[in-house]
Amino acid sequence: MISREMREQVENSSLIRAMFEEGRRLAEIHGAENVFDFSLGNPNVEPPVEVKQAILEILHVENSSAIHGYMNNSGYEEVRSAIAESINGRFGTAFTQNNIVMTVGAAGGLNVLFKTLLNPKDEVIVFAPFFGEYRSYVRNYAGELVVVSPNTVDFQPNLEECQEKITPRTKAVLINSPNNPTGVVYSEETILRLAKILNAKQKEFGSDIYLISDEPYRELAYDQVEVPYLTKYYANTIVGYSFSKSLSLPGERIGYLVIPDEVEDYENIISAANIATRILGFVNAPSLFQRVVAKCLDAKVDLQAYNKNRELLYGGLLSYGYQCIKPQGAFYLFVKSPIDDDVKFCSLAKQKNILIVPGKSFGCPGYVRIAYCVAYQTIERALPGFKALMEDAD
Amino acid sequence: MISREMREQVENSSLIRAMFEEGRRLAEIHGAENVFDFSLGNPNVEPPVEVKQAILEILHVENSSAIHGYMNNSGYEEVRSAIAESINGRFGTAFTQNNIVMTVGAAGGLNVLFKTLLNPKDEVIVFAPFFGEYRSYVRNYAGELVVVSPNTVDFQPNLEECQEKITPRTKAVLINSPNNPTGVVYSEETILRLAKILNAKQKEFGSDIYLISDEPYRELAYDQVEVPYLTKYYANTIVGYSFSKSLSLPGERIGYLVIPDEVEDYENIISAANIATRILGFVNAPSLFQRVVAKCLDAKVDLQAYNKNRELLYGGLLSYGYQCIKPQGAFYLFVKSPIDDDVKFCSLAKQKNILIVPGKSFGCPGYVRIAYCVAYQTIERALPGFKALMEDAD
Repeated sequence: MISREMREQVENSSLIRAMFEEGRRLAEIHGAENVFDFSLGNPNVEPPVEVKQAILEILHVENSSAIHGYMNNSGYEEVRSAIAESINGRFGTAFTQNNIVMTVGAAGGLNVLFKTLLNPKDEVIVFAPFFGEYRSYVRNYAGELVVVSPNTVDFQPNLEECQEKITPRTKAVLINSPNNPTGVVYSEETILRLAKILNAKQKEFGSDIYLISDEPYRELAYDQVEVPYLTKYYANTIVGYSFSKSLSLPGERIGYLVIPDEVEDYENIISAANIATRILGFVNAPSLFQRVVAKCLDAKVDLQAYNKNRELLYGGLLSYGYQCIKPQGAFYLFVKSPIDDDVKFCSLAKQKNILIVPGKSFGCPGYVRIAYCVAYQTIERALPGFKALMEDAD
Repeated sequence: MISREMREQVENSSLIRAMFEEGRRLAEIHGAENVFDFSLGNPNVEPPVEVKQAILEILHVENSSAIHGYMNNSGYEEVRSAIAESINGRFGTAFTQNNIVMTVGAAGGLNVLFKTLLNPKDEVIVFAPFFGEYRSYVRNYAGELVVVSPNTVDFQPNLEECQEKITPRTKAVLINSPNNPTGVVYSEETILRLAKILNAKQKEFGSDIYLISDEPYRELAYDQVEVPYLTKYYANTIVGYSFSKSLSLPGERIGYLVIPDEVEDYENIISAANIATRILGFVNAPSLFQRVVAKCLDAKVDLQAYNKNRELLYGGLLSYGYQCIKPQGAFYLFVKSPIDDDVKFCSLAKQKNILIVPGKSFGCPGYVRIAYCVAYQTIERALPGFKALMEDAD
């Protein structure tokens, strides 16, 4: 018999994944070209050619024991050095390999970090709307998720409420910019204000409050917008990164944590992250792909493809009367549901073979998330359905 | 500040890994060829050529989005089918893809399984000597490890004591054969007796007791010994497998769980394992290597290389007066320490540049583990040191 916690999880099994399975079922009935699946953040843009080149080069040059063997749980030194130098070159930081821990994707990195930091009942603050998996990641270590309600004007975080919700038990504030599900990039002004609040609260409570920046979408930013590098604004910042979207490698599970020297209790955090990587069963980030990403630090997926999708979908929806702010990052639109009940609206959309996710899954009812990491033609062909849905709602 | 649990972990940081770092330090001082590192189970035999061929073939045939993308959290259907068929062909079982969950190595698989099964204070029985990481894996989910004391006659599990230690809280019995650290293969007689005990206790307590078989060393068996396939002996058996040793791919983190239909609460366990894979941050086993192992199910590392090492080391040690049973699997010898204090003996060995691990790390003081997954020459050159150590001890 499974554990009580997992029974609950099985019962409430993620709406997003259920939608994914539903999409496959509908595709079998109606044909894949007639099902418009906007439900999953699965990159549709090909990995850059550098990825394949890197694999071939590594296979050619290195002996296979070296490619596929164990290494330090934190990852290859030379890979971590290359990543540190790349960050330094882009953001003017001064990291070394000792600040980098290679992880099994961003999700693996966050689990390592929460295992490292959280005592039971420690609080982690997130800003709605937020990626629903955060709830599980925090709960895995008996932490408590504290949700700050959404600011639906521009989806910048609600800092007044954040300030009120910080307590002596607050161990971390977790942010995600560019954001899933809104696509919004948190502005430098937001970051400066947040840093000020956190510094004041650390002083007030004599506590350490870690700012955890979950950055799988860092490279997916449009309109030349700047995505601030947070370690420069607040000393107790830890960054979680993933190559899932920047190189379209979500299945390979490769990312890293940046733990700066300035972070309080740095030595212990680095040691504990190393051990947590091991004892949670990751052991190390996949070895071949550590080397691959080190060779592809300047490569990027074709951002124009996503941008074209963004423009087409955003323009289309607006012309039908949908309300949505125009996001500058990631590959999501977070659209106001034309009817109050977002779950019901998603059901209505499904009847038109359009699969989207209710805002409720992200702690923000009344909205829906549309993932536009799909073929351009899928958006073109789905637009009439979105139009009809709006007409039906009126 | 890190969590209380991790502080303890950092303080007691694994002796094995510390030894690994120490080996590197000594190698820098004395030269790698003069340090004899028998401390880590890091396969030294090259992966079979089929691995590289498989990677090249996949890169050639598939498009890169398909190679590196997301799939079901349990893994690619076709990979799981191929694995099920391979097991069926070898062991006369009747598994399908629905019985297989791809995992991030065996360590990832065990974490998924304990997350799936354990309520706080549920007990997991292990037989000393046992792989020390099991302690952490169980503790991660607030379970309690119950250790059955070693049978140092032949290192088959002590079943009498196991029987006494089963309580209504016993959720699982975890075994590992071929065994780390002893190399012993648990006999069919052992398995039959264990199954009988577990069935009787399930009946007595009206409980489900899962037999978890951790099998990273299954393919490393010598002398034509049979390693029983446990699902055939006891209905509530779950198998954890890894390709780390069979294909020398420890860095790639690829393995699987076998969850048979016959297992009590099968449907929920499969669903929960899928979800646990996701929420623990694994998300899925690395995608390229799922396809690679599916193409290499009949491939194997060169077992003769390990066997030659086994014969040389075993013969040498015995001739110097060491006491050790001759194991039929894995790549470890578990040798009686010539002095009572195994930790002290390991320190003395280190003075001769020989790195070995105290039995204490495996819940069996008075013994030491010698990993012979090293170059043949390393054993040849280390034997005089072992001889001198025995002479010093007399």
